[in-house]
Amino acid sequence: MQQSTNHRRSNRRRLAAVTGSILAAALSLPGGAAAASPDSAPVTAASLGLMQGFPPPADKRVTRDNFMEYPYSRWAFQHIRELQPTRDIFRGEGSVAPLAPRPVDLDTLKFDVPGDRQLDLKTWLAESVTDAFLVLHRGELVYERYFNGMARTSQHQMFSATKSFVGMLVLCLIEEGAIDPGKTLQDYIPELKGSGFGDATVQQVLNMTTSLAFNEDYTDPEADVWKYGYVFGIATPPAGYTGASSIYEFLPALGPAERAHGEAFLYATPNTDVLGWLSSRVTGKSVSRQLQERVWQQLGVERDGYMWLNELGEEMAGGGLNITAADAARFGQMILHKGQYNGRQILPEAVARRILQAGNPEPFNRYYNDIWYEQIGYAYHDQWWTFNNPHKAVSAIGVHGQFIYIDPVAEMVIVKQSSHPEAESMANEVDGPLIWQAIAEHLMGQP
Amino acid sequence: MQQSTNHRRSNRRRLAAVTGSILAAALSLPGGAAAASPDSAPVTAASLGLMQGFPPPADKRVTRDNFMEYPYSRWAFQHIRELQPTRDIFRGEGSVAPLAPRPVDLDTLKFDVPGDRQLDLKTWLAESVTDAFLVLHRGELVYERYFNGMARTSQHQMFSATKSFVGMLVLCLIEEGAIDPGKTLQDYIPELKGSGFGDATVQQVLNMTTSLAFNEDYTDPEADVWKYGYVFGIATPPAGYTGASSIYEFLPALGPAERAHGEAFLYATPNTDVLGWLSSRVTGKSVSRQLQERVWQQLGVERDGYMWLNELGEEMAGGGLNITAADAARFGQMILHKGQYNGRQILPEAVARRILQAGNPEPFNRYYNDIWYEQIGYAYHDQWWTFNNPHKAVSAIGVHGQFIYIDPVAEMVIVKQSSHPEAESMANEVDGPLIWQAIAEHLMGQP
Repeated sequence: MQQSTNHRRSNRRRLAAVTGSILAAALSLPGGAAAASPDSAPVTAASLGLMQGFPPPADKRVTRDNFMEYPYSRWAFQHIRELQPTRDIFRGEGSVAPLAPRPVDLDTLKFDVPGDRQLDLKTWLAESVTDAFLVLHRGELVYERYFNGMARTSQHQMFSATKSFVGMLVLCLIEEGAIDPGKTLQDYIPELKGSGFGDATVQQVLNMTTSLAFNEDYTDPEADVWKYGYVFGIATPPAGYTGASSIYEFLPALGPAERAHGEAFLYATPNTDVLGWLSSRVTGKSVSRQLQERVWQQLGVERDGYMWLNELGEEMAGGGLNITAADAARFGQMILHKGQYNGRQILPEAVARRILQAGNPEPFNRYYNDIWYEQIGYAYHDQWWTFNNPHKAVSAIGVHGQFIYIDPVAEMVIVKQSSHPEAESMANEVDGPLIWQAIAEHLMGQP
Repeated sequence: MQQSTNHRRSNRRRLAAVTGSILAAALSLPGGAAAASPDSAPVTAASLGLMQGFPPPADKRVTRDNFMEYPYSRWAFQHIRELQPTRDIFRGEGSVAPLAPRPVDLDTLKFDVPGDRQLDLKTWLAESVTDAFLVLHRGELVYERYFNGMARTSQHQMFSATKSFVGMLVLCLIEEGAIDPGKTLQDYIPELKGSGFGDATVQQVLNMTTSLAFNEDYTDPEADVWKYGYVFGIATPPAGYTGASSIYEFLPALGPAERAHGEAFLYATPNTDVLGWLSSRVTGKSVSRQLQERVWQQLGVERDGYMWLNELGEEMAGGGLNITAADAARFGQMILHKGQYNGRQILPEAVARRILQAGNPEPFNRYYNDIWYEQIGYAYHDQWWTFNNPHKAVSAIGVHGQFIYIDPVAEMVIVKQSSHPEAESMANEVDGPLIWQAIAEHLMGQP
């Protein structure tokens, strides 16, 4: 009873959970709505004069105190390394795998979206506060747009889209026999014994069906959600705060909830931090290093990626990846092509197939029964979102409008990087997947 | 009278000044001496287990509190971006300018060094706690060694060798007519009016002959030298500290000293921060962006570089550059070749010629009359060190053993990156230049 009260939160909260914001309420400012109005192009970092001049005017500085707030986020999400410690994901010295261009004019393509509205793509990209938007069709680059000072070489914060990369690493370790998905977390990380993670299986953590006492009440200054933010410099702790500064202290301190593991999907970012820890404990390598060796040095990417660290050098596996849109598109294309890209088999085919499979909506719908979920058909498995839409697409998703959307029927990959004022928005999480299905259908009708 | 008392410091202090440490005394730990003993190879980050494991043991963590201290520095100087905010210096997408190998066995080459000792190169590299050591002769790579986990692609903190890059940028702007070296700083930066920099000329700042009230007394917790450290996270301010957190507040607050500008050389890092500010005020671009556009995207470097930032996104122009040894060697070779490299004229020839000219030792020796200076013949101009040695070499120099040494007679460039426990050491600042002169003579005798 208490559980359902707890978890039958407002649409907003549930959308927040879908898109992975653990600080969603805190990060959504009323001022943002106007900027995202369909009638006007959103403000940009340059139009606002953010971080311009030596020094910038006091009210134009992006700092650790305001960087998660719109409009400061318009600058910050392209410059996380200038605000936080970061770890390199080096591309190596191999040549770049070119993205062959085959431009298709999608600017004026029109879509019906909820609320009896019709939008064209160009308008929707502005309305959803886009920084970068790329469409690959059959491996060719049919549409590529940058806004707000972005260029093809700009690295952008991916937030919870990071989780899908971490899930992929764990799936590789399972495929290689280094991790047994049926074993419990405490089998690999004894420090987790007694915590909410201890007796959860690896598969339950991958699917976020663990039973965790993770308090997401933003009105409670003692809530776990704030403490997670303090660990990674997302939010500044109050003076005299004595809670965990290390993710390795924070995670074992999260207790179990009353329900059973496996009973229901409940989105909680620390699940992914535990997966990052698991992969590092098993391999002896950081998540960055694993991504570098398995993917970044194989994929023919254009640029290094990087991971957001806290001041102890610990990676924010739950949401700290920064990469270019074009490199995210290469990654999506590699998944679509069953792990093949750049002339080589980068991931085991079985891992790519696993990622591309539809999720089971049953545990998902136990707590998340919003009408929009029904319409879009969101479900979750192995740290990837799936959609119960005609093409059974899958996606990595991060707050404020980050997506790597893979449509296996249309052979289409869409990457969107954004700095929407709201962590989760109708424009991104609801209109977005409907528009991408329509783009897919349009491209399939193309010669 | 007071001046000469102030400035006739111990050899240690003067060497500290030469090598650019503004926190030299604070950063040199007694424990380091043993590690640098000639009888044993120095400890490495790996042999100490620093930052290994998830999490690393508490006593093996490198943090903002210990990263400047040996042996933590052995890990930290290759991982500044994992500890501090940083700004990218993007290499662009051009191809790499290869360093043609022509190996010469220098390992067992023997040198006489002060103290009636004879060393071979291999022993000296260990004794001086080297991370990377490269020798180019006539543009070919004759010797290349990495230690302590370094690889050719590892970026290393350059400390005050950064100053020579900033000096080069200002010389370019002078050559292009954007800056008049005879004008005063307040002509370009009105905020500096009334400060110790205000009525100094650009050339005096370049040559560090300004008269600044810059207190380097490490025993005084109120000393300016500490306050500079607090601005950039080199040291942690005491609780309740209310001093400048921005370099743009710190610099205008430095007052004038009693002597006249131009009277004498006195090494003070903030001179370079003012030059960085000047170049940014004139161009509208950060130092990183200027280096990226003028050099990094032209030189055929292998890797991006980066600059250490404070939490306000301000660059440590006085000492925050991180680059690979091989890319530092390309830069040195470009200066040696009168600004040409990678098939193009990268800098105006006049700028390279200016850098390669000998400094005037007269203002230098006004306060720095140490016997070692006489022996090595150190002088300074335009943010570059010069040596009154037979080949009239010039060098970028940073604390703890960073050098880009350019010998125009032998057509030789030497790059050394180190994590010596002492900010300034006999092994690096005294033995080093003597050994490099001997290497030059050896290479000139080669076929």
